[in-house]
Amino acid sequence: MGAQLSLEETAASIRSMEVRGAGEIARRAAEALRQEALDYNGHDPKELWARMQKGRDALLASRPTAVSLWNGVQAVFKGASPEMGAEALRKTLASNADIFIKRSKEAVEVIGRVGAKRIRDGDRVLTHCNSKAALSVIIQAHKEGKSIDVFATESRPWRQGLQTLRDLASAGIKPTLIVDSAARWLMKDVDVVVVGADTICSNGALINKIGTSQIALAAHEARVPFLVAAETFKFSPKTMYGELVEIEERDSSEVARPDEVPAGAKVLNPVFDATPPEYIDAIITEVGVVPPSAAYEIIVKELGHEFIFERN
Amino acid sequence: MGAQLSLEETAASIRSMEVRGAGEIARRAAEALRQEALDYNGHDPKELWARMQKGRDALLASRPTAVSLWNGVQAVFKGASPEMGAEALRKTLASNADIFIKRSKEAVEVIGRVGAKRIRDGDRVLTHCNSKAALSVIIQAHKEGKSIDVFATESRPWRQGLQTLRDLASAGIKPTLIVDSAARWLMKDVDVVVVGADTICSNGALINKIGTSQIALAAHEARVPFLVAAETFKFSPKTMYGELVEIEERDSSEVARPDEVPAGAKVLNPVFDATPPEYIDAIITEVGVVPPSAAYEIIVKELGHEFIFERN
Amino acid sequence: MGAQLSLEETAASIRSMEVRGAGEIARRAAEALRQEALDYNGHDPKELWARMQKGRDALLASRPTAVSLWNGVQAVFKGASPEMGAEALRKTLASNADIFIKRSKEAVEVIGRVGAKRIRDGDRVLTHCNSKAALSVIIQAHKEGKSIDVFATESRPWRQGLQTLRDLASAGIKPTLIVDSAARWLMKDVDVVVVGADTICSNGALINKIGTSQIALAAHEARVPFLVAAETFKFSPKTMYGELVEIEERDSSEVARPDEVPAGAKVLNPVFDATPPEYIDAIITEVGVVPPSAAYEIIVKELGHEFIFERN
Amino acid sequence: MGAQLSLEETAASIRSMEVRGAGEIARRAAEALRQEALDYNGHDPKELWARMQKGRDALLASRPTAVSLWNGVQAVFKGASPEMGAEALRKTLASNADIFIKRSKEAVEVIGRVGAKRIRDGDRVLTHCNSKAALSVIIQAHKEGKSIDVFATESRPWRQGLQTLRDLASAGIKPTLIVDSAARWLMKDVDVVVVGADTICSNGALINKIGTSQIALAAHEARVPFLVAAETFKFSPKTMYGELVEIEERDSSEVARPDEVPAGAKVLNPVFDATPPEYIDAIITEVGVVPPSAAYEIIVKELGHEFIFERN
Amino acid sequence: MGAQLSLEETAASIRSMEVRGAGEIARRAAEALRQEALDYNGHDPKELWARMQKGRDALLASRPTAVSLWNGVQAVFKGASPEMGAEALRKTLASNADIFIKRSKEAVEVIGRVGAKRIRDGDRVLTHCNSKAALSVIIQAHKEGKSIDVFATESRPWRQGLQTLRDLASAGIKPTLIVDSAARWLMKDVDVVVVGADTICSNGALINKIGTSQIALAAHEARVPFLVAAETFKFSPKTMYGELVEIEERDSSEVARPDEVPAGAKVLNPVFDATPPEYIDAIITEVGVVPPSAAYEIIVKELGHEFIFERN
Amino acid sequence: MGAQLSLEETAASIRSMEVRGAGEIARRAAEALRQEALDYNGHDPKELWARMQKGRDALLASRPTAVSLWNGVQAVFKGASPEMGAEALRKTLASNADIFIKRSKEAVEVIGRVGAKRIRDGDRVLTHCNSKAALSVIIQAHKEGKSIDVFATESRPWRQGLQTLRDLASAGIKPTLIVDSAARWLMKDVDVVVVGADTICSNGALINKIGTSQIALAAHEARVPFLVAAETFKFSPKTMYGELVEIEERDSSEVARPDEVPAGAKVLNPVFDATPPEYIDAIITEVGVVPPSAAYEIIVKELGHEFIFERN
Repeated sequence: MGAQLSLEETAASIRSMEVRGAGEIARRAAEALRQEALDYNGHDPKELWARMQKGRDALLASRPTAVSLWNGVQAVFKGASPEMGAEALRKTLASNADIFIKRSKEAVEVIGRVGAKRIRDGDRVLTHCNSKAALSVIIQAHKEGKSIDVFATESRPWRQGLQTLRDLASAGIKPTLIVDSAARWLMKDVDVVVVGADTICSNGALINKIGTSQIALAAHEARVPFLVAAETFKFSPKTMYGELVEIEERDSSEVARPDEVPAGAKVLNPVFDATPPEYIDAIITEVGVVPPSAAYEIIVKELGHEFIFERN
Repeated sequence: MGAQLSLEETAASIRSMEVRGAGEIARRAAEALRQEALDYNGHDPKELWARMQKGRDALLASRPTAVSLWNGVQAVFKGASPEMGAEALRKTLASNADIFIKRSKEAVEVIGRVGAKRIRDGDRVLTHCNSKAALSVIIQAHKEGKSIDVFATESRPWRQGLQTLRDLASAGIKPTLIVDSAARWLMKDVDVVVVGADTICSNGALINKIGTSQIALAAHEARVPFLVAAETFKFSPKTMYGELVEIEERDSSEVARPDEVPAGAKVLNPVFDATPPEYIDAIITEVGVVPPSAAYEIIVKELGHEFIFERN
Repeated sequence: MGAQLSLEETAASIRSMEVRGAGEIARRAAEALRQEALDYNGHDPKELWARMQKGRDALLASRPTAVSLWNGVQAVFKGASPEMGAEALRKTLASNADIFIKRSKEAVEVIGRVGAKRIRDGDRVLTHCNSKAALSVIIQAHKEGKSIDVFATESRPWRQGLQTLRDLASAGIKPTLIVDSAARWLMKDVDVVVVGADTICSNGALINKIGTSQIALAAHEARVPFLVAAETFKFSPKTMYGELVEIEERDSSEVARPDEVPAGAKVLNPVFDATPPEYIDAIITEVGVVPPSAAYEIIVKELGHEFIFERN
Repeated sequence: MGAQLSLEETAASIRSMEVRGAGEIARRAAEALRQEALDYNGHDPKELWARMQKGRDALLASRPTAVSLWNGVQAVFKGASPEMGAEALRKTLASNADIFIKRSKEAVEVIGRVGAKRIRDGDRVLTHCNSKAALSVIIQAHKEGKSIDVFATESRPWRQGLQTLRDLASAGIKPTLIVDSAARWLMKDVDVVVVGADTICSNGALINKIGTSQIALAAHEARVPFLVAAETFKFSPKTMYGELVEIEERDSSEVARPDEVPAGAKVLNPVFDATPPEYIDAIITEVGVVPPSAAYEIIVKELGHEFIFERN
Repeated sequence: MGAQLSLEETAASIRSMEVRGAGEIARRAAEALRQEALDYNGHDPKELWARMQKGRDALLASRPTAVSLWNGVQAVFKGASPEMGAEALRKTLASNADIFIKRSKEAVEVIGRVGAKRIRDGDRVLTHCNSKAALSVIIQAHKEGKSIDVFATESRPWRQGLQTLRDLASAGIKPTLIVDSAARWLMKDVDVVVVGADTICSNGALINKIGTSQIALAAHEARVPFLVAAETFKFSPKTMYGELVEIEERDSSEVARPDEVPAGAKVLNPVFDATPPEYIDAIITEVGVVPPSAAYEIIVKELGHEFIFERN
Repeated sequence: MGAQLSLEETAASIRSMEVRGAGEIARRAAEALRQEALDYNGHDPKELWARMQKGRDALLASRPTAVSLWNGVQAVFKGASPEMGAEALRKTLASNADIFIKRSKEAVEVIGRVGAKRIRDGDRVLTHCNSKAALSVIIQAHKEGKSIDVFATESRPWRQGLQTLRDLASAGIKPTLIVDSAARWLMKDVDVVVVGADTICSNGALINKIGTSQIALAAHEARVPFLVAAETFKFSPKTMYGELVEIEERDSSEVARPDEVPAGAKVLNPVFDATPPEYIDAIITEVGVVPPSAAYEIIVKELGHEFIFERN
């Protein structure tokens, strides 16, 4: 992880988007909190606790909408309290951070191994956008010697499907590209859909790249299994307390050049959409394959939620 | 229609795709048959009939998959037979052609007037691709003073949505563009969908631009009315006799430049997809608004089908 | 029908709502047109035609939203034209009127006989509001000796369910009343639902008393057959040309006394709602039991539509 | 809570329906058990336990169908056993009771704050009957400055919708009343439905005021989110052991005056109906927003169930 | 057809079930009526008409539930009336009978040719029971050189699936047998289902061998096209007038030997079940491929119904 | 349990299918492990642990696909580790085995008592195949004095329905047999379906006798509650880690005699099929009635999964 950044430096690099990627953000925050705890040389648990709380607040403020950041920070405080005494508190915090960092790093690989069992020899697999976790599942199935056909959507406006084509080709798979509009047309010949996740809500709904819900709907219509590959830090405890996930809208120029849009016309460019849980067959996590109805359980058991509740 | 082409010339210009557009093809064929009949100076109805049949075959062979061509040719022969005598036969053929040409020319405008009644003041309307008939409905509603918001999909790979933006802007509407993947996301805020048709099958299914069926599915899910604007010559009598409509696939370069596609990868580029009748609320034709279940009836009554049956 | 009213008097009595009921309005209009034709003593078909057209316009203007009025007027003109000559025209118009009046009078009884076949011994039947045609079906089944249990909804705000209770009790049936909210609760124990119709649209949708669509939805969910009893003059040719049926809203005092509604609060009181055709199993008419998908066909064949089209 | 009642007095006042309201019943029972424990001056844990069991039985017998009563009683015994020794047992019982009473009192307010996040600015909200918890959600959203339109059903036969109108008007909202039959008609213009609960079953089904399931069905059809506001003491542990919830039927005179019902006719007047979990989007509780599939989990974790199981 | 039977002999042989098969019964009845007409040597049209009516009644009474019998008889009387004069009446009746007999004989082959277009090369086809028309479609597709896999259900209790295996094997196809319970399990690997018909109702519902509706449901769930191969004489005009089709129940010994059924137990053995039209994608008839919603139209146009109506 | 078998003998008897039945296999394995632990006389916990692991592997290898075997073995190791010391380890293992054996033996009876509450007086109950747990529910309801009608499917190819008839008749119930194809036809008259389970997957899906999913689909269509009676040892922890359950196919001669199958034809004979969780209303276990969405929770809490995860 290179030279150690201070907590303030970490918060700054998250705020400036220098640090990117849900997993990386979460791990950096956990690392900074770990360092903050280890750097404390005093013996007053209350002082340490106050310091940690200040660090926590600074980190959370650096990217308030990043669910992985909340989860990384929350993981460090799991079961910790000033009542433990300074030494035990420091150890608990550092150990929590170590466990979180290790587990989140391994998650994509574990998801690949678990999820690959759901891909059968001869399967035709459809994926959308460019998700590390989803590709881990597909590429692992290929590595296990299963003969599979993989289809990738173009994923307008950024066309991440081209990156997916390259990732799959590098892994020795010969993928096929389709335009986003062809997903339902192709569905009759698809055996399984695998996508990634931006956020999993407490009711099992999936927030992911625009177009995901449309593909899920077409898969549901055709009774094709729709699988989501998601590390547990993608599950959002805040949604348990009623928060709705806001869908970001981005600049029109990503969709069309200004000269392509006549005067008076405009462009709507939403980044994500929401897929309801009834269209999701399973969520593949590093702690196993779970139905969307287990999202509440995962949040309560794997992530903890006292901290979020208290601050809510 | 400029200088009169001979029947052979007409067939050639249809074959070479010099003549394009479903309506134009049908009218040119009818016109050529009309001229063929009028050019006959003899008095032998059997000779005239044989000549006409030859012309019919030449025209049908020029674009065997164009449903409008079959319908235009069929319309000319409606109720005609050599038993009528040469004079009556010639008159019947010419008159049939005149009626077909006139009606097909007016169809888009009639559809506009009929369909505009289904657009209410304040409606948010979604359209896909670039259909003259669908735009006729939307623009007529605007002309009638209804305040409407219109959304157009980009319609990859050809991006006809940009043309739709221009057509709507020219008519004084301020349209909004979305990527194809955003259709389901938008659907919660859409009041009605209006699309065109390539072909209407005898069971009421719609063959249209790739992506149409996906939008219809999302509209059905959200219980948003899904309207199809289609001239009656888009209805396919051949599907009544079991024929399946083939979905054309086009060149991969329309979707991605060769250098964007890694070695081993390929592109699937289907032009159309099929929307099942249960997702279609109404078909707006120049003979009225009909449910998809009336497609069989429209074919039998408006188009006639003896001729197709006989040749099948 | 008492002393003969002039056409103007008939139009006035329809306008003032002195003449009520869909069937009665239609028959009075047909009768007035019949008299107008018979009263003509001249020999100029064009003059007669002009006079009839004037009468037609006056009648249609007296209640523009009454579908039965349009159908009654249309029926008189079926196949008539000034080309026939004065005498034939007069006869055609009078004969058309006679047939329409006779058939519409018998329709409720025919519907009863046809529909009763769909009620089996032991059936539990649910009805809504107070429809002559629906009660004709139920009472006929009872007369045929079938042992049936009949449930009537209260039908707020006017509570026509109480009238239905009385009508059924008079016929020797022992009915049961439920509040409107209990329809889905009861549905598990219902074998068939029978309701009447205000209007049948060209796509088979039903416009009927508020609450009908909710009951149809619950019947559909429970797979209980949902039958509509409707004379053919309830089918609306105008909907074929795109017209949407407007849902009337009535005074709030029908729902709550002014002193029951706190300041700032208000009451919405729609009279009808629309039931989509996919929730309707069959429409029982005097020309047979038809699926909702045959509405277009009924309109074209039974009612004729040239006249409406021409005026549209 | 006024002068302290003895356990027998409490049981009597619950039996006589002097004490009403699910929350109030539960809290009174917990309070009575707390007092019973504190009143014990001896040192024999078995004696205290026996006394408590007797009290428990007396309270449960006072209203066997009230789920909140079971939960209030169960809460007091959570983790308690005679093995603890008399002093610890007494403390545990009293502390359990205190916690339950405090939490249940605050529940409606917490539910309001959590649920209000699900109401967005500009939303049109529909509610049914008159539920404190549901109104807490709606009124809190209004207090937070969101501009909302609220619709209330009349809720025949008792017309609690009029009370809901008054409650909303007092809070500064301008509500609109509709008859129960108009719910599906209105649904196209509703953004979210919020209702209360009588009982939540272990499979997530909702038992609530007659008509609730009909509204849920219409919301589901239109894909309008259907939210249930329910304190955790509304969740029924007994349903986990197979018990079916009986639907009470009340006197016919609540629906129609005797003189309105003809001889031979009768009235069915069910108080509640059951809404299946697939029509419920979320249950808003004082421990967070949970999907109906989490009902089993809530029962196991929040309520405990050993005691019920043992007695079953 | 061997030596000519008298009308009474024909009626007797139908009654005794000596003549079997829907098509054969209908043709024999038509033939007998034709002969009856030709045998008449008088010149009194009323006498001929009375004689024919007597014959009609005798034939209809011989198997009142056979829909093909009604249709065969009806076909002979199409457009005939005593007003024509004796000679024209005789000719009309004989000609009607000839046309019906010829067309019904060719129907299975025409259905094969039309339906085979719906089977694509590589398709996996499932059929149920043993239907000549359905097998005609499948075998024709095979003859056209399409490589198809055919699956046949056992079709308990009579196990007609074994006959289907033999019929398919004789035609050079290598079929696969499954038990009836395996239909849904297999459906994920089926491309199209083709079954025959006992009766098609006016709303498009199918009455066919027990188990058909279960397979249709599973096909619908998996969105596998479900095709019915049915001659037009299988369409029932009587259902247009409200008649419900009775499902025959047969002897228990067809299902289990008496010694297999313990005392007190019994066996229910229904012969047919009803498949609702929404599970049927197309009906393949000798006049084309029609959606089930066209059943009403087919009955009105192809079969005529005045006669049935009059007698109803 | 007769003379004590050694662990190797137990493994051998499971492998040879001498020991049959999910419960019996699990209990024998637990018993063998218990004996193995008790037989250890040393004091080295690592030695004991190694011995137990060897035994575990031998048992698991004897029937790798039996989910109950995994669960029985897993139950013995719950919370055990060599860190405990030899004595505590031995006691923990033996006690775990005792608890598992006792509980699994009582499970069928507990399921009967819990499930019988879901059968109401007057209910018509359908069951499939021959499941001890399902029959326990039905027979218990009968014993409680409820008047019920029970229908059993034949369950081809083995016709276990005849055994079900005998089991029910022995218990004093008068059951009715139907062929498997008649399930949907009967469903309109069924109040509840109760079946057993081979395996419950982590997403709540049911693996059970071929035909089960077809009946579940028909029950779902008709909104008839579909209940599964299943001991918790039927829940499969392995499916949590992505494993798909393989559907065994058996010999064709079970379906048809070789001479019944023409040359070139073959028979597919799958033993089980998979019912998706959305068609299952409740799973009745010995720890209560749970929705299928609780399967994940049951596995985590009741069965434990560390051991499976570690070995995965």
